[in-house]
Amino acid sequence: MNLEMHPARSWPGGRLAELTPAECLDLIDDEQVGRVVYCDDHGPLALPVNFVVQERTILFRTAQDNALARHLIESATCAFEVDHVDHLLRSGWSVLARGSAAVVRHLSSDADAAWPLPWPEGARPLIIRITPLELSGRRLVPS
Amino acid sequence: MNLEMHPARSWPGGRLAELTPAECLDLIDDEQVGRVVYCDDHGPLALPVNFVVQERTILFRTAQDNALARHLIESATCAFEVDHVDHLLRSGWSVLARGSAAVVRHLSSDADAAWPLPWPEGARPLIIRITPLELSGRRLVPS
Repeated sequence: MNLEMHPARSWPGGRLAELTPAECLDLIDDEQVGRVVYCDDHGPLALPVNFVVQERTILFRTAQDNALARHLIESATCAFEVDHVDHLLRSGWSVLARGSAAVVRHLSSDADAAWPLPWPEGARPLIIRITPLELSGRRLVPS
Repeated sequence: MNLEMHPARSWPGGRLAELTPAECLDLIDDEQVGRVVYCDDHGPLALPVNFVVQERTILFRTAQDNALARHLIESATCAFEVDHVDHLLRSGWSVLARGSAAVVRHLSSDADAAWPLPWPEGARPLIIRITPLELSGRRLVPS
């Protein structure tokens, strides 16, 4: 990117407002993609997954033998980040759920796997539930 | 979300393809929002920021006295995640840069702060550079 193409600030910056936990849940309930945040031996990382909200927890699916599953099972501490960006208005919101992960279901076949529904092909028999201990978020309001 | 509203899988899932580091850099170069991923005393977390790519590194700005700045200065290990989601085609891409962070510049005034340009109002005099040691990504191609 040519840095000189960045215009000087010719518009007023937006205002950040904290979201309540109830607002956070309402907002992420409408989304389909969020990011699992966890640590492996090389440090922290974030990976997008499809998810659903169920009774104030976050559910997503993964394969049984991948690094994500192994690390979440070994060390349950993790987070989940969801955001929504409006490039035109330079605004949006973000939500961070911090808590722990646990395997809640091991699907024996794909037939009973109506939810959550991963966009990529391939078997993802593990359903992981993240239970938030902290739920925080911010909205960036255009000024 | 009413889970019963999720349709059964009536479309073929998309195909995941690994991106090369060069493709990763090309893709994130066009984006304005990514997520800093790091750990504090409560575990891993991810926070969206505005960023630019400069010579294969990622630059973003932050306030001098916030938790993000403190933790990145204390423990430089971090990651940066950028993705692009196409809800209509249920496709997209994601890039993960894993490496270390360092303060590269402390702006004395906002006058010389043309880049990177945060959308929110407020002083963000620290420019942090993340130097990726690993750069990986995946594209989800509609089938």
